[in-house]
Amino acid sequence: MKIYEFRGFPNPARIRIALAEKDMLDQAEFISVNVPDGEHQSDAFRAKNPSATVPMLELEDGTCISECTAITEYLDHLDGSPTLTGSTPRQRARIHMMQRRAEAGLLDAVATYFHHATPGLGPDVEGYQCPDWGNHQKETALTGMRYLDGVLENQPWLAGDDFSMADITAFAGLIFAGFAQLGVPDSCANLRNWQDRMAQRPSVAALG
Amino acid sequence: MKIYEFRGFPNPARIRIALAEKDMLDQAEFISVNVPDGEHQSDAFRAKNPSATVPMLELEDGTCISECTAITEYLDHLDGSPTLTGSTPRQRARIHMMQRRAEAGLLDAVATYFHHATPGLGPDVEGYQCPDWGNHQKETALTGMRYLDGVLENQPWLAGDDFSMADITAFAGLIFAGFAQLGVPDSCANLRNWQDRMAQRPSVAALG
Repeated sequence: MKIYEFRGFPNPARIRIALAEKDMLDQAEFISVNVPDGEHQSDAFRAKNPSATVPMLELEDGTCISECTAITEYLDHLDGSPTLTGSTPRQRARIHMMQRRAEAGLLDAVATYFHHATPGLGPDVEGYQCPDWGNHQKETALTGMRYLDGVLENQPWLAGDDFSMADITAFAGLIFAGFAQLGVPDSCANLRNWQDRMAQRPSVAALG
Repeated sequence: MKIYEFRGFPNPARIRIALAEKDMLDQAEFISVNVPDGEHQSDAFRAKNPSATVPMLELEDGTCISECTAITEYLDHLDGSPTLTGSTPRQRARIHMMQRRAEAGLLDAVATYFHHATPGLGPDVEGYQCPDWGNHQKETALTGMRYLDGVLENQPWLAGDDFSMADITAFAGLIFAGFAQLGVPDSCANLRNWQDRMAQRPSVAALG
């Protein structure tokens, strides 16, 4: 399988972590898409992924899958033993709920702040910007951090006792927050502790 | 199980359709949350669902699950025979990809247009509005309709040969578009045909 990505960027990191957690890093061929130069917006790449985003998974028969949740579902079920997305209905529900909250309330909120209320990747790549909305999403991201901090008050991982896709999404959100110079509030001790534990996982350390 | 909802609204419709597709409507107790009056934003409801959204699923032991994808994953796996979210890694990937595209590119875009660039549910419920972003999302929604129309050029359902969660999400997007008086472009014949086929499914007809 091929993974189209731009190394070091937050969303591609989600799939590198998932691959490493599944011990499948060596099964993927990584293809760099020059996002800072706008290559993801080219006609050639849009033909594979109309969403014009990285990461994207391309299977041997040319099938292209974008959206991190979809790629993670694929990778997690390949060996018939899902460890990132849950194996019971209740686990699946909690993981997908927390994944979505981490995505909408943190990762996507930080991304919108970065792309709309800062110079982002520059005028050639950004096009339309809405600073008012971007700054509002900055507040959403900070609220999201405080929410996740509260979740981690009584449990080690975002979906409960076990590490999951939800943790990967939230960690990518904090990578992006660092990139956008949006710090985790000092009051969020649980979230900072969790971030330290995440950084120690071999799958995260492998990001380099 | 209990489903907290406001009948007739687009996101609750997703779960009513999923329940009907799984022949589980009679297993759910529906509890009305008065969204037009802002009841979803009350402290009592936020204690169950910090996202302050309907629908929400409450299990017998008090566990609360929000986010439609999470609730659908739960319902679809309860009988051990998933029909809405896929049973192979490849199916799961395509369904989750198209679900997310239908959500971000249509349903959520229409919702943002409605809540930010129209009076929405009124000043008491809406609070902060960003009309510039709302109108931009209107264009995103129209682009999303044209994209989905293209997908349906060569296949009957959004994720391929079989009906799935992705179709439910997109149909809810068109319910919301109708509500927001945002019509499907005349040029989108495939999408209109698919909308007609959706309306004929017993699960959709049961919405009333």
